[in-house]
This record gives sequence, structure tokens and C-alpha cells, in this order.
Amino acid sequence: MTISARNRVSGKVVSLTLGNVMAEVIVEVANGHRIVAAITRRSVYEMGIKEGDEVTAVIKSTDVMIEK
Amino acid sequence: MTISARNRVSGKVVSLTLGNVMAEVIVEVANGHRIVAAITRRSVYEMGIKEGDEVTAVIKSTDVMIEK
Amino acid sequence: MTISARNRVSGKVVSLTLGNVMAEVIVEVANGHRIVAAITRRSVYEMGIKEGDEVTAVIKSTDVMIEK
Amino acid sequence: MTISARNRVSGKVVSLTLGNVMAEVIVEVANGHRIVAAITRRSVYEMGIKEGDEVTAVIKSTDVMIEK
Amino acid sequence: MTISARNRVSGKVVSLTLGNVMAEVIVEVANGHRIVAAITRRSVYEMGIKEGDEVTAVIKSTDVMIEK
Amino acid sequence: MTISARNRVSGKVVSLTLGNVMAEVIVEVANGHRIVAAITRRSVYEMGIKEGDEVTAVIKSTDVMIEK
Repeated sequence: MTISARNRVSGKVVSLTLGNVMAEVIVEVANGHRIVAAITRRSVYEMGIKEGDEVTAVIKSTDVMIEK
Repeated sequence: MTISARNRVSGKVVSLTLGNVMAEVIVEVANGHRIVAAITRRSVYEMGIKEGDEVTAVIKSTDVMIEK
Repeated sequence: MTISARNRVSGKVVSLTLGNVMAEVIVEVANGHRIVAAITRRSVYEMGIKEGDEVTAVIKSTDVMIEK
Repeated sequence: MTISARNRVSGKVVSLTLGNVMAEVIVEVANGHRIVAAITRRSVYEMGIKEGDEVTAVIKSTDVMIEK
Repeated sequence: MTISARNRVSGKVVSLTLGNVMAEVIVEVANGHRIVAAITRRSVYEMGIKEGDEVTAVIKSTDVMIEK
Repeated sequence: MTISARNRVSGKVVSLTLGNVMAEVIVEVANGHRIVAAITRRSVYEMGIKEGDEVTAVIKSTDVMIEK
């Protein structure tokens, strides 16, 4: 199975902050670079996401902006 | 000036495809990794984006998903 | 592998329209209901999406609005 | 009045979770299928959304991904 | 009927550009300020949007960024 | 530096609500009109956003809907 959102960056969860509804997941990828994801707390719970997990950050192309 | 969308990855524009309304910008970042952005053709024109440009891909945290 | 975008609806591709950059994929789900996805033409090509394919429409919860 | 976000699915609110800023609204649609929306707590308050309400989940086509 | 996306700005359509899949709608609001919307061509057709129309631009709060 | 998200509206922060993960920033722009942004609490902290600040709300065109 593949998904049409083709931007994918793999790394390790280095921080997890839970709110009532949302959760912040920080993923450390290559070169110490960090990606911040704001997903629902429900997804964190259902997927069992925890610090140290190997995960992939996925982003739809229409959500990427360009700065120059 | 900084923007609240804090996910930022710098690289070079290696491909630019123009439609009537949208444009696809492919940015090669570290390790040969590529990020695809779908922005308006208008932004490409107004910012003068072209192949070879050094740019930064910017993504809002609420638009990042986690796969595990 | 699961993705944090947990809204998922399965169905069949009943229409595919290609632009230079974007593509419109219409998926017929249960009860004849239709879901319209605007994804990049590149994803359609790389995934080999065509009419008649069984696919799943996936949506991040932060992208769902409520009307009442 | 109609809105350009044409993906619409009607159902009943079966769960409502409030955070300080965000709220999670779960809508049960046909076939027991559930759609999760993460909207602001402010919208829940201003619209008076509560469990049992008949509502419509609305999604912009550019926010729909395809998995195959 | 109200929608949870509460950012609303009314104005007049001053430009409409059609692609195969997407359409760009430019709305002139108060003070000559312009808002650009990229929606599907299908929505433009189904809603009969044309230059001169009085419309409202609607934006979900999770899609608004802050620059400072 | 400019960003491809070209919808920009300047104003003053008149309200700031913090959750564990997300924050709601309300910006009063021209004519007393208000724009609501849901961004991460982390961005509010890192940018030092506070009531009274002059800021700009920024929105990507693909996130703007049209109501008619």
C-alpha cells in the first residue's frame, strides 16, 4: 500500500507532548534536523507512538510552501 | 520576520512544472532527498522561482502526519 | 504500517482527470456517495492510479470541518 | 449558500472531547463508519455542538489523499 | 447552517483562471485587498462562479499561520 | 525573503489562549475584523507572541474556500 502524499522523511521520535485533543510529536531525522507534527492524541494512543520509535513523517505536496 | 510554520528544509530547485493554475516545484535537499511542493503558478511567477534557485520548503506542523 | 490520518473510506475510482500538475480522482464509496481528491499528477503516475482501481481516501482530522 | 469544499458526509455527533484550544468531534455516518474532526473549541462553543447533533463533515478536495 | 471554519471575508470575484483540474479565484475585499483561492475547476463549474460575483472566502483556523 | 503563501493580512494580537499543544491567536485586522489562527504552543513560545504584538496572518491559497 502506498499513499499519494509522497513527501516522506524517516527518523526517531525524540519528544512527545500530549494535550487533551492534540499531541505534538518531534521526529529527529538525518543531520539532527527535527520535524514537528501536530496530530490527534487519539492517533498517538491508537498507534502506540512513544519516544524512541522509528517513524516516518508524511506530508502532502499541496501543504508544502516555498520560501526564497 | 519569522513564521509560525517551523518545519523548514533548505535545498535547490531541481524541477519546475507549470500548469495553468498550479506549479510543481521539486527541491533537492540533503542526501539527495527530494521534497515536492504544489503551489500556485502565480507564486512561482511573482517570486521568480526557477531551476537552480536556493529555496526553503516550509510546512505547518498541523499538516505533518506520522506513519509507524 | 499505519498512518496518523485515521479517516479512511474505501471505494472505486470512477473518474480521473489529469492536468499538467494536479489530478482529480473521484472515488465512489458506499451508497453511491462520491469523494473528490485533488492530488498531484505525479502521484497518479507513480502509483499507477486508473479508473476501476480499488483505493482508500484518507483524510487528516485537522482537515475536517463541521457544518451544523 | 454553498461552499467550494464539496466533500460532505452527514451523521450524528457521538463523541465530543474538549481541550483548551482544540476539540475532537466524532461523527457517526452511514454503516457505523466514524469521521473524526479536530476543530477549535471556540467553534464548538459558538455553534453549540453537542452529542446527538445532526451535522455534516465537510472536506476540501485538496485535503484528500489516495492510498492504493 | 454554519460551518466550523470561522474565518470569513466577503468580497467580489475580480479574476478567474481555469486549469484542467484547479481554478484560481481572486476576491477583492475591503480596502482593495485581494485574497487568492485555489479550488477545483469542478467547484467553480458546479457553483457557477464568475467574475463580478459576490462571494465569501472561508478559511479553517488550523490553516492560518502567524508571521512576526 | 518571501513565502509562496501569498495571502497576508496584518493586524494586532488581541487574544491568546494556550493549550498543552496548540494555541489560539486572534488577530484584529482592518475594520475590527478578526482572524483566528490555531498554531502550536511551541511556535507561540519560540516567537514570543503576546497580546498587543503587530503580526501578519498568512494563508496558503490551496487552503482558501469560496462560499457563494
